[in-house]
Amino acid sequence: MTGRLYVIGVGPGDPELLTLRGARIIKEVKCICVPKGKEEGSSLALSIIKGAVNISGKEIMEAYFPMRKTKSVQRSKDIELDSKWQETIEAVYSRLNKGIDMAFITIGDPAIYSTFFYLYDKLLELNPELEIEIIPGVSSINASAARAKISLALADEKIAILPANYMDNLKDTLEKFDTVVLMKVYRVFDDLVRALNDMHLLKNAVYVSRAGMGDERIVRNIQDVKREDLNYFSMVIVRK
Amino acid sequence: MTGRLYVIGVGPGDPELLTLRGARIIKEVKCICVPKGKEEGSSLALSIIKGAVNISGKEIMEAYFPMRKTKSVQRSKDIELDSKWQETIEAVYSRLNKGIDMAFITIGDPAIYSTFFYLYDKLLELNPELEIEIIPGVSSINASAARAKISLALADEKIAILPANYMDNLKDTLEKFDTVVLMKVYRVFDDLVRALNDMHLLKNAVYVSRAGMGDERIVRNIQDVKREDLNYFSMVIVRK
Repeated sequence: MTGRLYVIGVGPGDPELLTLRGARIIKEVKCICVPKGKEEGSSLALSIIKGAVNISGKEIMEAYFPMRKTKSVQRSKDIELDSKWQETIEAVYSRLNKGIDMAFITIGDPAIYSTFFYLYDKLLELNPELEIEIIPGVSSINASAARAKISLALADEKIAILPANYMDNLKDTLEKFDTVVLMKVYRVFDDLVRALNDMHLLKNAVYVSRAGMGDERIVRNIQDVKREDLNYFSMVIVRK
Repeated sequence: MTGRLYVIGVGPGDPELLTLRGARIIKEVKCICVPKGKEEGSSLALSIIKGAVNISGKEIMEAYFPMRKTKSVQRSKDIELDSKWQETIEAVYSRLNKGIDMAFITIGDPAIYSTFFYLYDKLLELNPELEIEIIPGVSSINASAARAKISLALADEKIAILPANYMDNLKDTLEKFDTVVLMKVYRVFDDLVRALNDMHLLKNAVYVSRAGMGDERIVRNIQDVKREDLNYFSMVIVRK
């Protein structure tokens, strides 16, 4: 009997936004695989679950996933993953083969920009019969809307979620969609403010950073956002 | 002291997908307001929380929210709400005024097509100082992706969420976005299958109905979907 792999979305930051199912599975498994963006950094996902579940006595397998800076990363099938990824895949696979159930924890929701899906195909290549269950979580997009107290869409309204490279088509997208969620705005913040100003949409924008965390920032006049507030978790929601 | 209103996203159907925070608040409040789509129907949101929390002894205030069939419903400011809505607003407001903390429960995530936001402005008109906290939840979109074991987006990929009236611009949207989530497909299913076939995208589509519920259906060849399987909770995710 091989072990079962649970991929758990642990929510955007507040440990209480973990689901009941996520918390239960984390309590039950023996080993937790924790992705990290930097080799030396600490894991936000790990700190989230520590705030909700006592994980003492469990094996914590920290895994460093170097992210590539390519313009269009495809599914893992199509790219050569770094050797660090291969190490992680083998470490996960060997434990499952020993019959150990594992949780792979990921910030927010697994379907929304989680690195897990790069591993998914590779694991199934090793054994197409592997039992993998994905447990959805609260995404940072939904949490940001909740904290800013805005609806992303009502009735027949359309939502666009743009993670990057959006400046070229921004006007077109804002014309066709009722709500546009712009992720990772730290990269292009000044250009974005200028573009929204040109379109007379500044008053429709709200800036949310680190929703639900201790250092959360919500700024309704996005021209007031300071450079030092911009970070990887900053987004702007434009609601027409 | 007025009571506090908690708007809680209870997730897509599986009671275990309620958040820890949602479950805790439901345990603590004295009164739960439960929206219903039909005056005589039962509430899915209520059955979800009953599966996770013992709510005996609490006041359950069922509220019927007739949904209008207009093409573009605006924020509640701009529309005349049915008198049934006004009754609910007054019932909620009078309890808060007595200092009673309340939970307003809503399926999925409150920011994604929840009727709550029609009430929100009306409540703040009555008292701009009302304390309203929105607790995000797992949306049916994230849950459907999890059950179908697909990523909605990786790296720089763009997501479009279209609730209705999408047939006219479908080709354009599918060209510009990496993932297109089509909600409420029961309305136009045959047209949709034909359009995706014309665009050679049938193999990229997956049909998900009632994700995580007992009668969940996942169909990877959407031409096999039977008319009787189509319902309000059916969606198609197209992943290029």
